[in-house]
Amino acid sequence: MAGTDTTLPIELPPSPAIVLVEPQLGENIGMAARAMANFGLWDLRLVRPRQGWPNERAVATASHAVQVIERARLFEALETATADLNLVLATSARPRDMFKQVIGADQAAKRVKAHIGAGGQAGILFGRERSGLENEEIAMADAIVTLPVEPAFGSLNVAQAVVILAYEWRRAATGDELPFSGETGTPASREELSGLVGHLEGALDRAGFFPTEDMRPLMALNLKTMLTRAGFNAQEVRTLRGVISALDRKRGG
Amino acid sequence: MAGTDTTLPIELPPSPAIVLVEPQLGENIGMAARAMANFGLWDLRLVRPRQGWPNERAVATASHAVQVIERARLFEALETATADLNLVLATSARPRDMFKQVIGADQAAKRVKAHIGAGGQAGILFGRERSGLENEEIAMADAIVTLPVEPAFGSLNVAQAVVILAYEWRRAATGDELPFSGETGTPASREELSGLVGHLEGALDRAGFFPTEDMRPLMALNLKTMLTRAGFNAQEVRTLRGVISALDRKRGG
Repeated sequence: MAGTDTTLPIELPPSPAIVLVEPQLGENIGMAARAMANFGLWDLRLVRPRQGWPNERAVATASHAVQVIERARLFEALETATADLNLVLATSARPRDMFKQVIGADQAAKRVKAHIGAGGQAGILFGRERSGLENEEIAMADAIVTLPVEPAFGSLNVAQAVVILAYEWRRAATGDELPFSGETGTPASREELSGLVGHLEGALDRAGFFPTEDMRPLMALNLKTMLTRAGFNAQEVRTLRGVISALDRKRGG
Repeated sequence: MAGTDTTLPIELPPSPAIVLVEPQLGENIGMAARAMANFGLWDLRLVRPRQGWPNERAVATASHAVQVIERARLFEALETATADLNLVLATSARPRDMFKQVIGADQAAKRVKAHIGAGGQAGILFGRERSGLENEEIAMADAIVTLPVEPAFGSLNVAQAVVILAYEWRRAATGDELPFSGETGTPASREELSGLVGHLEGALDRAGFFPTEDMRPLMALNLKTMLTRAGFNAQEVRTLRGVISALDRKRGG
């Protein structure tokens, strides 16, 4: 979905850290960074990325998410990557044999939002491409976050998991505000609609549309219903009247 | 998030078509297919993919989402790709100068779910990596879907947009059911908690923890509060009593 407005300043409001533990591919780090930038996240922490850091492939796939990639911090251990956090959520696609709460991405986002709103520091952990997080890494998390996947195909790409959490974070943080809204115009008044119906009926009379006078009331009723249902605005009603006039003239000519 | 259970059968329940219009990169098609499989979607339609079809890169990045890639259908025009659909939603990251409703991904998913539940055929359109959908392609869509992106970085990767819509579809379709739930065990009874507190106080007495008898009630109160807040279950209370016994024995020895 192409829609970046490069004239707008990038803001760095309080938001959760995204912690990638031993990510294998630079492409996934880059896509995760891009996903973060899309939804207003900027604190990326990398624990022992397999291909080292900085990583050219990560930069290439981040698609100019420079403020995330340039700020990304490298850590040797999960303990140091999460040292400053006082709310830690760990993503997992499979159940763990641990006494630990399991929540969805939307609940996770709301919890993070409340925590950050109260002045706390929060982070969300994502595991390795092939094996996820280890139980040892989950043990000190406040809760496990999982997604409503199809069990027969539950293996989510790490950047895809990041974008869903980032999306839910943004919804929670902004009150689900969309970047733009639809404009269907002020619906036409009944007078404008009546004018359209009358205009059409007159043209149809001239065109011999109604086979008999008996059938006319029901057919007219159906036309009124059809023309009302779409919620045409005043401009659209004028357009339709122009259409009717054009067809009516053509018949007359 | 690693968690595919390959022993489970793949189901193909009624679900919306994902229509990619002129996707540039095979990788994005593959990632979109994988995202679809993650959330139970299977009807992938490709309109004029730039690198042709089938595409090796798409297969490689689909990560065994075979049921989606193998079923993907190729179309020369959007009109034929959407011919059988009676609900069409078009994704866009930017406003269009059209009288068209704009909804979020969650509303879109609920609308698709209701439509399919009533026996209809639905599809969601995704545009080109660089430029999105053209106005002409959106004109015959029932509504525009957009995501709550950061306006300064609103350009979402197409497969990332697909995974969010797929995730919301799954939530709407399954009533937001997670693939597994947390188990924190039955919270300990007050009797078990009282036993723990008494055990700890006795050990602390022996260890000389309470400086004076005056300070004891408040310190004991704080310990009771701490030990209650976590909602320990019976097994955890037993573990803690074992810990206390071990430390108590060590002092005595």
